[in-house]
Amino acid sequence: MENDTNITWHEHRVTREERERLHGHRGCVIWFTGLSGSGKSTLANVLDHMLSARGAKSAVLDGDNVRHGLNAGRNILKETHGDEFAERFGLGFSAVDREENIRRIGAVAQLFCEAGTIALTAFISPYRVDRDRVRATMPDGDFIEVFVDTPLDVCEQRDPKGLYKKARAGEISHFTGIDDPYEAPDAPELTLKASEQTPEALAGEVIDYLVGRGILKVFAA
Amino acid sequence: MENDTNITWHEHRVTREERERLHGHRGCVIWFTGLSGSGKSTLANVLDHMLSARGAKSAVLDGDNVRHGLNAGRNILKETHGDEFAERFGLGFSAVDREENIRRIGAVAQLFCEAGTIALTAFISPYRVDRDRVRATMPDGDFIEVFVDTPLDVCEQRDPKGLYKKARAGEISHFTGIDDPYEAPDAPELTLKASEQTPEALAGEVIDYLVGRGILKVFAA
Repeated sequence: MENDTNITWHEHRVTREERERLHGHRGCVIWFTGLSGSGKSTLANVLDHMLSARGAKSAVLDGDNVRHGLNAGRNILKETHGDEFAERFGLGFSAVDREENIRRIGAVAQLFCEAGTIALTAFISPYRVDRDRVRATMPDGDFIEVFVDTPLDVCEQRDPKGLYKKARAGEISHFTGIDDPYEAPDAPELTLKASEQTPEALAGEVIDYLVGRGILKVFAA
Repeated sequence: MENDTNITWHEHRVTREERERLHGHRGCVIWFTGLSGSGKSTLANVLDHMLSARGAKSAVLDGDNVRHGLNAGRNILKETHGDEFAERFGLGFSAVDREENIRRIGAVAQLFCEAGTIALTAFISPYRVDRDRVRATMPDGDFIEVFVDTPLDVCEQRDPKGLYKKARAGEISHFTGIDDPYEAPDAPELTLKASEQTPEALAGEVIDYLVGRGILKVFAA
């Protein structure tokens, strides 16, 4: 016996193109990479404001919103899910754990992109292979790598979270730029000199790039 | 020596409220739960169409878009990231692996919600504790649990992917409803009788609920 309503129970997804038409712009991932204190997160948030002000759909992924949820570490998961679970799934700081951290962020950024959103990610993401793997999972043109090129000494002067001081004092180990390498992108879509211009001017460069690539339209506003 | 541009290098995030004002509706997570073949994914996609047609920002998370990325299993990760990595991070079918699967989906749905989007998730999510943990991570009112209440015999007749047949033949084990339990929600926000009405009518019930809760406005259209 067939169910009467069966005939209509098939999948018909809203396509990415339909969402993009609705939003008035294309989806993409803008992947900021650079040293701690280079200005990635500030830039992502300034750009997010500029996009929102133009009515574009955007979202920021950074440590603030993935560290306690998606990529929670052992201490957090221990409290919510117990010891065995935390041991199995909590992310630490080993090489593979860092790689998984970036892999998940890439996968989520891609989900936002497929939903027609401009996803802005702000993570040090120091290893070229990890960034290139994220790029490789996405259709050509969706992944826009933005190298926030701020000299180490400037980042260390800024030291907004006091992390360089701790790293120099040996209280933190494997700190990018101090005792762990940062691998600059070979061919980023954009390089921003974040020690030489304001965040607003730099975010404007990204907007110009998006307009040039046809991802955003030129706005009358 | 302070950097000249330092003064402007602070965080100022676009708030959820600002995004919601831009979108003209609130963000939330609509969590469809029910047996395999109950109609969760169809319902999510029909609802997604209805929301898009009204200009609302929505996104669907289901097996199709998380299985190969965010929650990839060992076989997939082995190819992209190698054996050690796949062993450590690939999701399998153990109890904790299924729990992690749901935990990550919940975390991502929450990111969409915080971006002012109506996130529609369509996963069997058979265990009450896993769904309740997702609910517990979110502010009151953001998590809307929708029980797609289709009798097992109807799901088994539909068997859109031939999985019940395989489970009955012993080719798949731990299959929800056959040799693994489905724990129905105690107090879902909505229960949809998906064997008695069309997907369009049921999605309309969800829309009515969202309007009643002030998440969506009544649309002139």
